[in-house]
Amino acid sequence: MVVGIDKAVSATNPVVSSVKKTPPSDSVINLARGDPTMYQPYWRRMGDKCTVVIPGHDLMSYFSDPGNLCWFLMPELDDAIRRLHRVVGNAVIDDDRYVVVGTGSTQLFQAVLFALSSPHNPDNEPLSVVAAAPFYSSYPEETEFLHSGLYKWAGDAYSFDKDGAYVELVTSPNNPDGTIREAVVNRDGGKLIHDLAYYWPQYTPITGKADNDIMLFTFSKATGHAGSRIGWAICKDKEVAAKMVKYIELSSIGVSKEAQLRAAKILNVIAEDCANPGPEKEENFFEYGHRLMSDRWEKLREVVKRNGVFSLPKFPRDFCTFMGKDTDPSPAFAWLKIKDGLDCDNLLREFKIITRGGTNFGVDSDYTRISMLSPDDEFNLFLERLATIKGTMNGNY
Amino acid sequence: MVVGIDKAVSATNPVVSSVKKTPPSDSVINLARGDPTMYQPYWRRMGDKCTVVIPGHDLMSYFSDPGNLCWFLMPELDDAIRRLHRVVGNAVIDDDRYVVVGTGSTQLFQAVLFALSSPHNPDNEPLSVVAAAPFYSSYPEETEFLHSGLYKWAGDAYSFDKDGAYVELVTSPNNPDGTIREAVVNRDGGKLIHDLAYYWPQYTPITGKADNDIMLFTFSKATGHAGSRIGWAICKDKEVAAKMVKYIELSSIGVSKEAQLRAAKILNVIAEDCANPGPEKEENFFEYGHRLMSDRWEKLREVVKRNGVFSLPKFPRDFCTFMGKDTDPSPAFAWLKIKDGLDCDNLLREFKIITRGGTNFGVDSDYTRISMLSPDDEFNLFLERLATIKGTMNGNY
Repeated sequence: MVVGIDKAVSATNPVVSSVKKTPPSDSVINLARGDPTMYQPYWRRMGDKCTVVIPGHDLMSYFSDPGNLCWFLMPELDDAIRRLHRVVGNAVIDDDRYVVVGTGSTQLFQAVLFALSSPHNPDNEPLSVVAAAPFYSSYPEETEFLHSGLYKWAGDAYSFDKDGAYVELVTSPNNPDGTIREAVVNRDGGKLIHDLAYYWPQYTPITGKADNDIMLFTFSKATGHAGSRIGWAICKDKEVAAKMVKYIELSSIGVSKEAQLRAAKILNVIAEDCANPGPEKEENFFEYGHRLMSDRWEKLREVVKRNGVFSLPKFPRDFCTFMGKDTDPSPAFAWLKIKDGLDCDNLLREFKIITRGGTNFGVDSDYTRISMLSPDDEFNLFLERLATIKGTMNGNY
Repeated sequence: MVVGIDKAVSATNPVVSSVKKTPPSDSVINLARGDPTMYQPYWRRMGDKCTVVIPGHDLMSYFSDPGNLCWFLMPELDDAIRRLHRVVGNAVIDDDRYVVVGTGSTQLFQAVLFALSSPHNPDNEPLSVVAAAPFYSSYPEETEFLHSGLYKWAGDAYSFDKDGAYVELVTSPNNPDGTIREAVVNRDGGKLIHDLAYYWPQYTPITGKADNDIMLFTFSKATGHAGSRIGWAICKDKEVAAKMVKYIELSSIGVSKEAQLRAAKILNVIAEDCANPGPEKEENFFEYGHRLMSDRWEKLREVVKRNGVFSLPKFPRDFCTFMGKDTDPSPAFAWLKIKDGLDCDNLLREFKIITRGGTNFGVDSDYTRISMLSPDDEFNLFLERLATIKGTMNGNY
């Protein structure tokens, strides 16, 4: 079998007559980054409920809560984060857990590496950082780019066999492939960072409260507000939390208060809507998100099944304690595999679909990662183009 | 001469009957960090003029300006920054200069180190980073804390004699001592970073447009909005700007849009008020700031002169092109020296005045740095306590 390109929508002759909305049918669709703009219509519908108003004299000081270990965390954000986790039931957030806010979970990831590897003994080897492949494509570069003597990227957790201290990143549901994960190395001297960016009801059934030592969450993927750059860590250990705070102090002297204030407002509105549903109320954010994501996955699976060129992972249906019923996982990314060992990312680029190829995630190029979070019209155009890629016995790709 | 402590306000018996306002007369006054809350009354007086209103569906994407080299910089902030510099005349901001926004100038400083030291050749020595003492106390730690192989702190520029590539930080007006500075090493293979956080008319006469390769500014010190964590760099070189963008992408995937939007609004209001003064208009922000700072410096010099224990730097009066008249510098920090080789920071702590001692800035402990940017009541209480420290021939400190 080889792959035939429907000439009508090839990159050189782009005509898709049925697509009338923006983006233009010949435009490049960039699904390489998980820009979660699909949730925008929901927030628009909420009108003024989530609007923040900030006068010029407000939020001026560096300090938010000088008595708190995380002195730059605004108490209203701390409260909103705790309230939302309690309502959703996706993480243990008892009073003895420390919340550390960061400029996205990207900054928090680096804060954790610093926290787990310091104080540094110059005679020590740098701490090995591993994750099971396929792993989030930015982990290696974020770990390596400053050539730190504190920690270094040590690759795929499945093949990690070095002695000594290590950190394993456990991303669950996993980016890029959506699987539910546990640690794979499980050795003395190991520490775990749980990246739970996607452990929310729109992406996966909530099967229990996560109770890990260090858990990372991000506003971007929870609600779609990527432009705010707000993430948070929940830590059991005070010393780890204190070192993370030190990292954020040294790298940016805290986190934008405007962004914190807005995140607090929006997380509170979601928590309130979830906690107090009413017959006259709109569906809550997670119900909305899950409905949209399920619909997209159903359509994508249909296209993939029909054209016979690709395959997608299958996920087990499970009981979601938040929804109170069985739900199917509907991850934020589609981990698309192409048959016959072709380069999946390259092929899609010929159709002006930009994705992130498997080699970025530590696996082969027959896989590629596709964001499922783009606006409706972009997602629909993507499906149309994908549908035109047909597996034939006599094509000449 | 030794220093006598007026028993009435010693730390163990704190009574200052004349202080009636908050903070309580026995409270600790923390002037160690330059938290610029003194400007708050001005912004309160501006009422709604600087208020931002952000609906829940706004600012959701990671991207601000995908076609721009700095793809996360909001065009309205770019415009406001350029407009303000043109109005104030403190920096060359021609169209061919690149603006890079950061999470405070702290993040930008680290972005510049990355930009100037990469791509990294593992056989190379790390880039030496120097600054003339007294230097900003956070530079060494911000350079060293990740044990980067790309760059390393090499101390006082005055005693730097190592061969090879180096970066010199030129902070002007200088933090902590308020002096106007130029590079001191001036050798082949050297690159300069100009930290111009305090090159604004409230702190120093604007004597010309700065035209350096890499210039750093920060919203915190320009307008007092430290909680926003907004800084910006102006770069001549495209490649340096691109690498800084890469750093910010890897360390935090951009900068909060809420903070950028608010900074744009406030910088625009200042620029508008400066560009279009009217007889019925309030004084503009810099006039206000300079009036307050001058008044504080006058009072502080009076107290220091009277008690005879301390000394302060003297600064040359100069013509300020922005004010259109001669002005005296009135730096954001007082660089206080105590006579007779005592420990200045320690002495002040006995009076519950927390400052940052000279050793943090690479010099002796007879110096200490005092923020001049605290709220009025705190500043006045500080002066009262300082006035009680008297030089006597028969004291027994």
